[in-house]
Amino acid sequence: MKTDFNTIAVYGIGLLGGSLCRRIRRFFPSVRIQAADIDTQSLESALNEGVIDEIIPGGASPAGADIIVVAVPVVASVGIIGDILSMHDMKSEAIVIDVGSVKAPIVASVSESPRSAQFVGCHPMAGTERSGYAAGFDALYDNARVIITPHEANTEKTVELIRNFWQSLETEVHIMDASRHDMIAAMTSHLPDLISGLLVSIVKNSGLASSMDEIRKMTGTGFAGMTRLAASSPEMWSDIAALNGNNILPLLDRCVDEINRMREMVEAAPEDGRLLDYLYEVRNFREKLVLK
Amino acid sequence: MKTDFNTIAVYGIGLLGGSLCRRIRRFFPSVRIQAADIDTQSLESALNEGVIDEIIPGGASPAGADIIVVAVPVVASVGIIGDILSMHDMKSEAIVIDVGSVKAPIVASVSESPRSAQFVGCHPMAGTERSGYAAGFDALYDNARVIITPHEANTEKTVELIRNFWQSLETEVHIMDASRHDMIAAMTSHLPDLISGLLVSIVKNSGLASSMDEIRKMTGTGFAGMTRLAASSPEMWSDIAALNGNNILPLLDRCVDEINRMREMVEAAPEDGRLLDYLYEVRNFREKLVLK
Repeated sequence: MKTDFNTIAVYGIGLLGGSLCRRIRRFFPSVRIQAADIDTQSLESALNEGVIDEIIPGGASPAGADIIVVAVPVVASVGIIGDILSMHDMKSEAIVIDVGSVKAPIVASVSESPRSAQFVGCHPMAGTERSGYAAGFDALYDNARVIITPHEANTEKTVELIRNFWQSLETEVHIMDASRHDMIAAMTSHLPDLISGLLVSIVKNSGLASSMDEIRKMTGTGFAGMTRLAASSPEMWSDIAALNGNNILPLLDRCVDEINRMREMVEAAPEDGRLLDYLYEVRNFREKLVLK
Repeated sequence: MKTDFNTIAVYGIGLLGGSLCRRIRRFFPSVRIQAADIDTQSLESALNEGVIDEIIPGGASPAGADIIVVAVPVVASVGIIGDILSMHDMKSEAIVIDVGSVKAPIVASVSESPRSAQFVGCHPMAGTERSGYAAGFDALYDNARVIITPHEANTEKTVELIRNFWQSLETEVHIMDASRHDMIAAMTSHLPDLISGLLVSIVKNSGLASSMDEIRKMTGTGFAGMTRLAASSPEMWSDIAALNGNNILPLLDRCVDEINRMREMVEAAPEDGRLLDYLYEVRNFREKLVLK
């Protein structure tokens, strides 16, 4: 396996960025990895553990890097991508990518930059409910799908370079329009996360919360699975919801309509079979949708 | 390990009943297992595989059984429990138990029976998204919690016998009031199931369903986890929703209120930090609630 890059700079070595450093280290031991993070302790750990080669001092530019990965929370990433693109000593052929779960606003944010062609939006679909450098591990990207959302200024060559980068790390790459990505991600990821939190909140505000022991006895694998997303980073999800509000808000309205419809079906069951039909329809649809 | 029962009759050898037969067989090879089911093919398989010893012919009573387990869908179980309690050749010391996910209506249904003392409501919290005899396996009950919901007519001795029965199968038994069980189960299990289906339905009715390939690329472990319950038996969940409607309907209303509140928070994020606070609160609460 070979790579087109000699030096990689990673901004933010949390779960996604830190795991990416570890993976690059394993696949391409000779690639030089530079890193920046507001958490200096994580940077020191990464340096001591050999996960990175060099710390980029605060405010300094990733001067020698061929590829620059911005892996900070998605709202903050907008500013950092802009800052990096405006650094005068960035290599003229360097490519900046991100790992954010929302794409259209990030891609749009570079459109006025003279170097917009050097930014390619990426969304590696990987994660656990944990966060931070210590939670990272290189297998996080095993079989991960990575969505690349090219924009008008990107050349085919640039997109291919980035596709190769992700593929060389043994991920499955798909190309998609940024707006379409955000619309689908709102349904398959952002809404489910909010709803996961809602299910916890319903218990929390039930007035039964004083009987925690009793409730705890009745939370099985179903509840644990339905609320796992609610255990993941509040900052990340708050950011995502804010940036992708345009797509999420109409879905929340649809949920309300659907719950009201469900209410009627529950009231009429079991004599009226609409609820049963509904459950069959969603089961059949899910079978076609979710890969085993 | 010993048991107080020589002969056990199991009505319904689907996922729960069939797995129970296998587990009894493993723990107590000398116990005689009789079984009834509307699916004669499953009965034949169970007999051939040595999972049961004897088929109870349609309409016949479980004459020799010390314990009779009704493991049919919860709406149908009401009628079957009533039928069994009224069979004149049932042993006078036999105990009938069920495995239903809703308890108060089932317990209430036996209150007029002269043999109501011989019925004890049970809810083994075990399951997968599959159903039917072939899907069963004895480890389904490994570390399962079993809620026993005694009623006024039950003697302490009867409840202890049933507690011992479940404990001898290495499950963790808890005693709880039937109504309280149903109220908590609505929050921790029945609502999450309906919501799991709703998340699938939102995708199904999105108008994007024609782009299944594209959507499929964007369903990761989060979506799969949030919709796993929607893959389980429609009959079971329709039954549960119908029988526990009293507890589920107010929760659906609360979901609507909560989604409307969420909508405001998403709109105001990230400048207004209410969504972030909300996500922190639910994460903290979940940590105390869900056992690792």
